[in-house]
Amino acid sequence: MPRYKLTIEYDGTPFVGWQRQENGPSVQGALEEAVMAFSGERTSVSGAGRTDAGVHAMGQVAHFDLATEKPVDTVRSAINFHLKPNPIAVTEVEIVPADFHARFSATARRYRYLILNRRAPPALDRGRVWHVPVPLDAGAMAEAASLLIGHHDFNSFRSTACQAKSSIRTLDQLDVLRVDEKIQIDVGARSFLHNQVRILVGTLQFVGRGQWSQRDVAEALAARDRTRAGPTAPPQGLCLIEVRYDLGAGHRDNADVASDDE
Amino acid sequence: MPRYKLTIEYDGTPFVGWQRQENGPSVQGALEEAVMAFSGERTSVSGAGRTDAGVHAMGQVAHFDLATEKPVDTVRSAINFHLKPNPIAVTEVEIVPADFHARFSATARRYRYLILNRRAPPALDRGRVWHVPVPLDAGAMAEAASLLIGHHDFNSFRSTACQAKSSIRTLDQLDVLRVDEKIQIDVGARSFLHNQVRILVGTLQFVGRGQWSQRDVAEALAARDRTRAGPTAPPQGLCLIEVRYDLGAGHRDNADVASDDE
Repeated sequence: MPRYKLTIEYDGTPFVGWQRQENGPSVQGALEEAVMAFSGERTSVSGAGRTDAGVHAMGQVAHFDLATEKPVDTVRSAINFHLKPNPIAVTEVEIVPADFHARFSATARRYRYLILNRRAPPALDRGRVWHVPVPLDAGAMAEAASLLIGHHDFNSFRSTACQAKSSIRTLDQLDVLRVDEKIQIDVGARSFLHNQVRILVGTLQFVGRGQWSQRDVAEALAARDRTRAGPTAPPQGLCLIEVRYDLGAGHRDNADVASDDE
Repeated sequence: MPRYKLTIEYDGTPFVGWQRQENGPSVQGALEEAVMAFSGERTSVSGAGRTDAGVHAMGQVAHFDLATEKPVDTVRSAINFHLKPNPIAVTEVEIVPADFHARFSATARRYRYLILNRRAPPALDRGRVWHVPVPLDAGAMAEAASLLIGHHDFNSFRSTACQAKSSIRTLDQLDVLRVDEKIQIDVGARSFLHNQVRILVGTLQFVGRGQWSQRDVAEALAARDRTRAGPTAPPQGLCLIEVRYDLGAGHRDNADVASDDE
């Protein structure tokens, strides 16, 4: 029974999120229906990250099994055909070992958050950015971000609904860069807690406005208390850019991956 | 009677184009209604380029007159407030001399055309790119583009509906660059003929596919016959990036600007 690995791009706007739910259309549900439509097989499509409603992806990864082995180009074209008119596209299909797991085999995830920092509301970027009309100091945000990189207890930076057993994570990257009218925040880790990226962004934004000092950020981290960090930034600014796997991709490693929900 | 210069961003998808028309919503019409709503004055908003249905803008420029002078920040915020829920945003407002004309005072226009060149259809870039699923040779396209730069009779590269008296234009820039899965075509001139950028792109795409040689492009230009150039590329890949004016912006110069319709 071959296992297929999918790389997936989607506009999260019309979906209740990655995960199949009763209350509306999901990316996972649309993919499972498309696989069913072309193969006749009812399968479960497992994703690397359970993105929330409104969150986008350029490089989500998922896997599923089929009874027979088909050419990967055929699988990609057939799924894309049946995905219409959903704003979801399978950009790559590979056949992987049976012990490959999109979520548990992942060794790194990268997200990008975009803030549109100008007075005028977004027109071309509507639904893709968080609009912050007051000027943000990207330099101060970048300095505060450096305090959060590394191995920490991120309990202040996870949703109170987060189900991960441990709130300890290793943040490998948290770069803040101004690109014209946008502030681009690139975040990388092996795995993330629920809403972790959005709470990091909501907190850095306090620094950018001059409301919080570097010290306030250090104290928020040390407090290990959700009420001490900034607000959860809105979903539409967030995009899952990439999920990485080791070259010998089959191995499964459960350490530090109890949750990955953005 | 003060004259206001607007810089405007819009997603062209829901519009019949820049120009007010009987058959549906236009960007110009939405702006005129927004100005009316906040000022009570019925004005005409004149744009620098009459973009076609589905064509986007990051930096369209327009002007209009009001009976009284108001602070530019107030004008911007009030127009943006009344533009909702249209995907149009006024990013900048300036007061300009009475002889400034968005279309006739313009000294340069820059457009960008995006081709998504991969097998999978667009998801995040839907409505913003032309999807060409067969591999394009961007190097060959760039080489062909260099043949088209300069002062030429572009009669082969304008819509048969183009109303400009002369089809002679000076193309200052026609850069073709591959950026990952996209091919980005940057085009600059004082002014353009109707559909000129889209026909240039449709022609270069023939070269990218290997269907046309460099010589075919040179012959298409020399023929001065619309039927000898490539097809008109679809509107959604096109975006008006910038319109430039001389620093002493008031002067009006009708040379070489008989038409500017994309």
